[in-house]
Amino acid sequence: MSLFTFELHATDGAARAGVFHTAHGPLPTPIYAPVGTQATVKSLTPRQLHEVGAILVLANTYHLYLRPGDERVAALGGLHRFMGWNGPMLTDSGGFQVYSLAGTRGEASGKSSLRTIDDDGVTFRSHIDGRRHRFTPEQVMRVEENLGADIAMVLDECAPPTDYDYNVSALRRTHAWAERCKAAHTRPDQALFGIVQGGIFPDLREQSARFLVALDFPGYAIGGLSVGETKAEMHATLDATLPALPADKPRYLMGVGTPEDLVEGVARGVDIFDCVLPTRVARNGQALLRTSKFNMRNARFADDPAPIDPTCACYTCQTFSRAYVRHLIVAQEMLAATLLSIHNLHTMLTIIKECRAAILEGVFAAYRAAFWEARRRAAAHDQESQIES
Amino acid sequence: MSLFTFELHATDGAARAGVFHTAHGPLPTPIYAPVGTQATVKSLTPRQLHEVGAILVLANTYHLYLRPGDERVAALGGLHRFMGWNGPMLTDSGGFQVYSLAGTRGEASGKSSLRTIDDDGVTFRSHIDGRRHRFTPEQVMRVEENLGADIAMVLDECAPPTDYDYNVSALRRTHAWAERCKAAHTRPDQALFGIVQGGIFPDLREQSARFLVALDFPGYAIGGLSVGETKAEMHATLDATLPALPADKPRYLMGVGTPEDLVEGVARGVDIFDCVLPTRVARNGQALLRTSKFNMRNARFADDPAPIDPTCACYTCQTFSRAYVRHLIVAQEMLAATLLSIHNLHTMLTIIKECRAAILEGVFAAYRAAFWEARRRAAAHDQESQIES
Repeated sequence: MSLFTFELHATDGAARAGVFHTAHGPLPTPIYAPVGTQATVKSLTPRQLHEVGAILVLANTYHLYLRPGDERVAALGGLHRFMGWNGPMLTDSGGFQVYSLAGTRGEASGKSSLRTIDDDGVTFRSHIDGRRHRFTPEQVMRVEENLGADIAMVLDECAPPTDYDYNVSALRRTHAWAERCKAAHTRPDQALFGIVQGGIFPDLREQSARFLVALDFPGYAIGGLSVGETKAEMHATLDATLPALPADKPRYLMGVGTPEDLVEGVARGVDIFDCVLPTRVARNGQALLRTSKFNMRNARFADDPAPIDPTCACYTCQTFSRAYVRHLIVAQEMLAATLLSIHNLHTMLTIIKECRAAILEGVFAAYRAAFWEARRRAAAHDQESQIES
Repeated sequence: MSLFTFELHATDGAARAGVFHTAHGPLPTPIYAPVGTQATVKSLTPRQLHEVGAILVLANTYHLYLRPGDERVAALGGLHRFMGWNGPMLTDSGGFQVYSLAGTRGEASGKSSLRTIDDDGVTFRSHIDGRRHRFTPEQVMRVEENLGADIAMVLDECAPPTDYDYNVSALRRTHAWAERCKAAHTRPDQALFGIVQGGIFPDLREQSARFLVALDFPGYAIGGLSVGETKAEMHATLDATLPALPADKPRYLMGVGTPEDLVEGVARGVDIFDCVLPTRVARNGQALLRTSKFNMRNARFADDPAPIDPTCACYTCQTFSRAYVRHLIVAQEMLAATLLSIHNLHTMLTIIKECRAAILEGVFAAYRAAFWEARRRAAAHDQESQIES
């Protein structure tokens, strides 16, 4: 499909900088996507999202299928028009949410009170009203085509990452469903990505990558990580998986992660990331900084006239003091979530842009070393401050 | 005080168009001020407030005195810098909130479990932690000077509007406190306005206006309205009060009101309005239109691709459908409050700008007639629709 060309502009070690072309414009990679679960990145307007530097936005198929309904979104002109975002968008398959229902994630059994998986698909109950629904690969393709994001994901089965036998049987379904999704998918303006599974097991990951690459998707995701395994396990899994994927297709690490995860993912050759973390922790009063994080509710900020991060160029840091942000949190004002979401997304988007620039200049290894050195120094300083006080 | 000059540019019947000059820029009058109770107009950034056309913003002294504390705000550079609003600001005296505590408003007694009024001031308990505090005229001047708004209000006593005897005794205190506020007030960059009280009684209102005008304030407010009296009583009170105020000073109708109240207030010679209504009802899913209002949660909007008001130029109406706004409300997304606050404030600010333009062109009577005719037609249409459905 010629629409979805991926140009690789530079590599630096395993790290890559490129551009993935979509129907709603180019994605400079590596890239980080804010998450707009219910067709809104919580507390932000699309204009604010744009100002903060977002290019790609993710929405959740499970949530939008249930409410307001994918057919309704299609009748209203598709997801882009519905939520007022004219840039590139990505939808997941809804599978992860279905498996996560009622805390069943990580369970070895395929059954729970809320969902039942069989070889043909998954039956689940809505978290909103308890009604029964069924996702098959063909049904999910219909839903994602109705939503109309630029990148859609195949339906897969998310297994607990450290259970080998479960991963073997889940992989069988994941691969069969990937084939069925590819056969059912029809929109020429939508890139369908395959999803590599296999838990933390290198042999399963390699097997999964080989199978999916043979199906020839315009891009490949790595699923089933950041769900309980250690950082070392995540990194080892990436090291085993990424070399098995073709260099001329974008690689998407689903649901990851923190500032550290971005830098380490890029170092291993990941091109696309998404995570709810920056906006979710914003709603709990947490500010992400390049080198650490702050609980902005802390009384030590009550009289602090400095911006959250004096080196940050975001609207929040250019306009407001830590004291004001803390006041908004303590006074339970909605603006606290907005200002912290702006800052946290800006931090993530700045880090990923810096990674890209460093790769293009051939200095990514130095950038990565400096990033970790700054974090070590900040942690040591925090410890000193705690001893002093 | 030469800083606070009021230029009257045009009159049309009793309606007036002018400019009141403040330390943070000129106020074109008539003007409507959004309310930022806790140093934030709920759910909006100052940038969004500016984009929606706001010029003057009100903040509440009672709330800011308790949290984060007026001395803290002063140490952080004052209210403008604290909340990132560089335009003109106004603070009330906190009196109204103190009298409203625990639903004691409208009570004939000066005592309640939460506050006690005596001739020297009012003792009250914080709604946050129950601790005792005391406001005297001198203390309130100190607090308002710490906050540093461009317009500050004297401490007054708000009496139930239809109780003559209570209003007679309340007026005695209100006048004595106005004198003490004027004597205690020191900031040359802050305009201190007197507040006319007297309930719905023309003789008391005229007496109050005469007393305050003799003290020579740079502006006068009309307090104690929109608190339970009928619209006819409010209008009669304005008709009795406004002619007793000097033409060369701005008149501020406190806590009023609806789109209709703006037009009728302007018609009687009011220059400044404030009201929480547009942002408060926004958080309940209500959209204000020039001619009516919508409950945006209503299922009839679920598939409606039209903007809330097809004639509206606000960001919300230019970007989103009724269906999307309804989805955000049903999905309990914070963005619903933001988008409806933008729309509702834009509606109020547009109406007040249209009033001003009509006065300057000498066609305010026709504007007012057309405003009411459009509302009558919309109401008739709503009734027809209800009969049909």
